[in-house]
Amino acid sequence: MEQILQHIDDQLETSLHRLFSLLRIPSISAQPAHKADCRLAAAWARDTLTEMGFFARLSETAGLPGVIATHYGAGPDAPHVLFYGHYDVQPADPLELWHSDPFDPQLVDGPRGKRIVARGAVDDKGQVVSFFEACRAHLAVNGKLPVRLTILLEGEEECGSPSLAELLTKERETLAADFVMVADTNMWNFQTPAITTSLRGLAAVEVTIKAASRDLHSGLFGGIALNPINELTRILGALRDDQGHIQIPGFYDGVAPVPEALLKSWGQLDFDPEEFLGEVGLKHPAGEHEQSALAQLWARPTAEINGIYGGYQGDGTKTVIPSKATAKLTFRLVPGQDPQKIVQNFERFVTERLAPDAKAEFAHFGASPGFAVSLDAPFMRAARDALATEFGRPAALIGCGASIPVVEAFKTYLGLDTLLAGFGLDDDRIHSPNEKFEVACFHRGTRAHARLLSAFAGSKTIVL
Amino acid sequence: MEQILQHIDDQLETSLHRLFSLLRIPSISAQPAHKADCRLAAAWARDTLTEMGFFARLSETAGLPGVIATHYGAGPDAPHVLFYGHYDVQPADPLELWHSDPFDPQLVDGPRGKRIVARGAVDDKGQVVSFFEACRAHLAVNGKLPVRLTILLEGEEECGSPSLAELLTKERETLAADFVMVADTNMWNFQTPAITTSLRGLAAVEVTIKAASRDLHSGLFGGIALNPINELTRILGALRDDQGHIQIPGFYDGVAPVPEALLKSWGQLDFDPEEFLGEVGLKHPAGEHEQSALAQLWARPTAEINGIYGGYQGDGTKTVIPSKATAKLTFRLVPGQDPQKIVQNFERFVTERLAPDAKAEFAHFGASPGFAVSLDAPFMRAARDALATEFGRPAALIGCGASIPVVEAFKTYLGLDTLLAGFGLDDDRIHSPNEKFEVACFHRGTRAHARLLSAFAGSKTIVL
Repeated sequence: MEQILQHIDDQLETSLHRLFSLLRIPSISAQPAHKADCRLAAAWARDTLTEMGFFARLSETAGLPGVIATHYGAGPDAPHVLFYGHYDVQPADPLELWHSDPFDPQLVDGPRGKRIVARGAVDDKGQVVSFFEACRAHLAVNGKLPVRLTILLEGEEECGSPSLAELLTKERETLAADFVMVADTNMWNFQTPAITTSLRGLAAVEVTIKAASRDLHSGLFGGIALNPINELTRILGALRDDQGHIQIPGFYDGVAPVPEALLKSWGQLDFDPEEFLGEVGLKHPAGEHEQSALAQLWARPTAEINGIYGGYQGDGTKTVIPSKATAKLTFRLVPGQDPQKIVQNFERFVTERLAPDAKAEFAHFGASPGFAVSLDAPFMRAARDALATEFGRPAALIGCGASIPVVEAFKTYLGLDTLLAGFGLDDDRIHSPNEKFEVACFHRGTRAHARLLSAFAGSKTIVL
Repeated sequence: MEQILQHIDDQLETSLHRLFSLLRIPSISAQPAHKADCRLAAAWARDTLTEMGFFARLSETAGLPGVIATHYGAGPDAPHVLFYGHYDVQPADPLELWHSDPFDPQLVDGPRGKRIVARGAVDDKGQVVSFFEACRAHLAVNGKLPVRLTILLEGEEECGSPSLAELLTKERETLAADFVMVADTNMWNFQTPAITTSLRGLAAVEVTIKAASRDLHSGLFGGIALNPINELTRILGALRDDQGHIQIPGFYDGVAPVPEALLKSWGQLDFDPEEFLGEVGLKHPAGEHEQSALAQLWARPTAEINGIYGGYQGDGTKTVIPSKATAKLTFRLVPGQDPQKIVQNFERFVTERLAPDAKAEFAHFGASPGFAVSLDAPFMRAARDALATEFGRPAALIGCGASIPVVEAFKTYLGLDTLLAGFGLDDDRIHSPNEKFEVACFHRGTRAHARLLSAFAGSKTIVL
């Protein structure tokens, strides 16, 4: 291992040159004018991996191609790891806010040493090349990789992954790994790596309460005619009790308490809810009172009204009793909750509370379950060991309050769990002008990836 | 009296001719092109009343003039009655839906005999001329009126009475009567006259709940950040208990129970809540459970949300936690309720329920108290007697769930109560094409007005 790490340290400048050559390709997937650039970036990856000894090819889709590359050197008994990244980037505008050409990468001095400034510096080209360089070091020193490795690079991640399902379905056999690793996330801070162990799912529903067949004058009908806005607020106003518990029947069915190990890890994080909320003008965690702020963010389900409308919305006042009122809701879901049941139970919650003259109509906009990786999964143990060794401190085990569509797709189409460990920082300005990646993060990331690959080698027996 | 009524019966055709001459003047106050027509209608009224023996004049305002006419024949000890009407009419469009020229009045056969069809046939020229003709009959038979009478005709009633306050203030001394009579309302049905004994007031308020300083992503902040839409529904959802009682503290302070006499009168009305609500697709009276449907409509205060908005209102779904949400409310108020206190108490109701991170901002859009005339007021007793005699059945004593601005103005500027008794029918199509007034209603109205004038003569001692 020491030889491999030494190789990485020695080759850092060359590694950066390779990254810069990829960063110079403006592979903006959202802009049709850059279609050829996107294909060029895909070819760059294919050729780079081929040269490294992978069996690499483009896998065409209705949109931009995927890059699929496998290295079989570890032999048929080694664990099979699927690495996911993407070769496309966000548009660079507003261009006038960049201090340098977004596609002419620069090394710039910063408070943490040199940083790489370019569109895609960290999201996701920097993270992808950092992984490539870890593979390259293993191959240079040992002539093979410690695991069977398949690399999948997508070309449409920044425009909603429209062809990902097609790609995963078509390439199911090639991609039949033991787990997925995704390097598209951040460290906890500059000193501390992080593994995201859970994501929340989502169920989206719209409810419209209807009453009279037309808008009514409140002087002629007020008091006797059912008001659907009053009705909507009455029903949705009962969504939570005074302790913040969601009152939909069966809402918490299947929700397990946060594992002790996670609670312990969260307790060690330097997370200050007042500071976090203070940045958006708030102060008090608003979820279930007995839950910690981090649990409210990462591990507990929600019932949010994202939009509401009905009746008169102009200036001043109007004495109307409208015929209907609508609310749009989303539920952030955690593992154990059945999205379909949540939606059904919400509909029952509304319907059971309706006044005699009220009708409720519902619309649905998709539902996905929450996701969590067991801390006991072999790849998770291996990853925690490797990261702790590289960084000299345990990786922060964190949650994410949102979904990550590719993680969901790997579960759905390949049945695979995902290790989410990346080396970006929260201040890397992804999707914004002057996106950057600290050279130190690129370098530590490469070393960490090298250690991860070795650590996974020992995880096979437990995986199967 | 019999001579007077006989005179009215004999002169019916001539009375209609006089009404038709006024109906031919297109005195549309909302349309500047008809300004001269409006002044012509005012002059018509002034000259007609002068010829009848009134001291009549135009009272100029910033807008169209009022017509003010007083007949002093009854002597200084007689009760002083102020009659209010308006000489302007609504625009006639859409013209293509009229079966005849709106300003070329026609006598048309209908199920209840002949009817007058024209813009203003009932609102308010027909009702005004019916009153003029009653005065004319008294003057023809007796050479004087039984009461001191001041007539006030407004020229801007159909465009919001912008100069009424100016007129009432300027003419305060001339208009210092014992009470006002307004003939701009309807009978209960073709057989039954009606007196409107109460109107509801109104207080209008807008509340905006603010939380974060910007819109938030529900994946990053959901669960920990206060959601102002959830907050708004939670607070407004508690406006009423499960029996329909409004929960604002002190909301019912000063609200008296409906007088027994009114309840008895309402009980005799052929009012079917299911039929009333059925016309707008509803069935169940939605107010306080223990109150009758008519009490909910006429005598009980309300808390209606007339409009609500916040967050995402487009198609589909958006995982946003917005920074604010707004609701617009009106309270229909009944006599005894203090509009300012209601608004203050509503604000307290909201503020006391706010979560720690929520702020509430309020805007106000005017407030007016409810209005009720005592059934024991002498003019009310006199009116009930006169109408019962003319129609052979008691007048329906009804309420009105809305405000009538002129009634409020008479109370505010002159300190006077108003007798609301008119002879229109609900199917007269006021403000719509083919507005009509049944000749029978015009005729009965004239006879009823003649009896009212006589009845009021005996009410003086009790008034003072």
